[in-house]
Amino acid sequence: MLHISALEKLVHELSRLPGIGPKTAQRLAYYILRTGNEYPERLSEALLRVKAEVHDCPTCFNYTDTDICRYCEDSHRSDESICVVEEPSDIMRIESSGAFRGRYHVLHGAISPLEGIGPKELKIKELIDRVEDGLSGTGPAIKEIILALDADLEGDTTILYLAKQLQGKGLKLSRIAHGVPIGSDIDFVDDRTMGRALQNRVEL
Amino acid sequence: MLHISALEKLVHELSRLPGIGPKTAQRLAYYILRTGNEYPERLSEALLRVKAEVHDCPTCFNYTDTDICRYCEDSHRSDESICVVEEPSDIMRIESSGAFRGRYHVLHGAISPLEGIGPKELKIKELIDRVEDGLSGTGPAIKEIILALDADLEGDTTILYLAKQLQGKGLKLSRIAHGVPIGSDIDFVDDRTMGRALQNRVEL
Ligand SMILES: [Zn+2]
Ligand SMILES: [Zn+2]
Repeated sequence: MLHISALEKLVHELSRLPGIGPKTAQRLAYYILRTGNEYPERLSEALLRVKAEVHDCPTCFNYTDTDICRYCEDSHRSDESICVVEEPSDIMRIESSGAFRGRYHVLHGAISPLEGIGPKELKIKELIDRVEDGLSGTGPAIKEIILALDADLEGDTTILYLAKQLQGKGLKLSRIAHGVPIGSDIDFVDDRTMGRALQNRVEL
Repeated sequence: MLHISALEKLVHELSRLPGIGPKTAQRLAYYILRTGNEYPERLSEALLRVKAEVHDCPTCFNYTDTDICRYCEDSHRSDESICVVEEPSDIMRIESSGAFRGRYHVLHGAISPLEGIGPKELKIKELIDRVEDGLSGTGPAIKEIILALDADLEGDTTILYLAKQLQGKGLKLSRIAHGVPIGSDIDFVDDRTMGRALQNRVEL
């Protein structure tokens, strides 16, 4: 108990952040008090600004501070491929590989019955609409959909659901490969990854 | 690069917090965006409120949101003993032990020549003033000063400096004991702690 209500409130709010326990939140709150100068104002302003300026791109649901996001706007990218990801932050991982030059679609999560997240909580209908608009000619034609979802139960469940929804529309549908990370020692790869790496072996 | 200036600014401000690297800051910023609802506003308000309401107690320099802090105000505590600590958060550690019922004095740091923190950067003059006010009768008489500073180089340096400043004023001056933590296995105690525990042995 800090016995100072404003300080307790700040600790409470900070401890709602992921990975920040009550002890860490208290340490951060004391740091914020101690720094004096303009730090609390600057952080406060940054929080309000992000809330005011950043919104979902109406096409792909990536975060953006412009009408449509930079990946949807870029005329040098192909309209024919859409890479589907769970979170906006996943786009950066794919971009930094330089291996994809199409468009994106952000689901904002993955199907998780345990957490009460079903297909309706995700931007799945919006993905189907993009495909349908291509088929009817009201949007750009889409030929390929690459599912770059997490390699966990939720990702797998979402892939199964999407595959069912998207089949029969003449699309090339794929998921990114699982296997041994480049540069990693085979000794340190877990059994499931090794199983997948063997299953997905590529002919030479 | 997130390519969204409001988001980059938030990541930048969050990564100034202690123990929060750029990766963690980015994860927190995305969480803040994703939570939607009123979280950014609530955290922002908590930051501004702590800045506006919390200040140093004019007597002991503990944080408080009232004119003087609860420990200085409590008439059931003894005026004769002052426990000197580095940070306001240290007071809680001492209070929860229930072993001290006097007043406090917060230095707001410890002497650290490497970090450019000398005696003038700390509330040391204010501590001497409290002692002098007791001697001259303009404040409550102080009989004992307990130094509860960190058991590191900065704490030790500060203790040496304070001992020199406070000697010859008829005070009982002590520092808290170092030794083997209660409940801990002797095998796991480091050499310096064990050295101190032997030096500070208590006759039975
Ligand atoms: Zn977009
Ligand atoms: Zn006080």
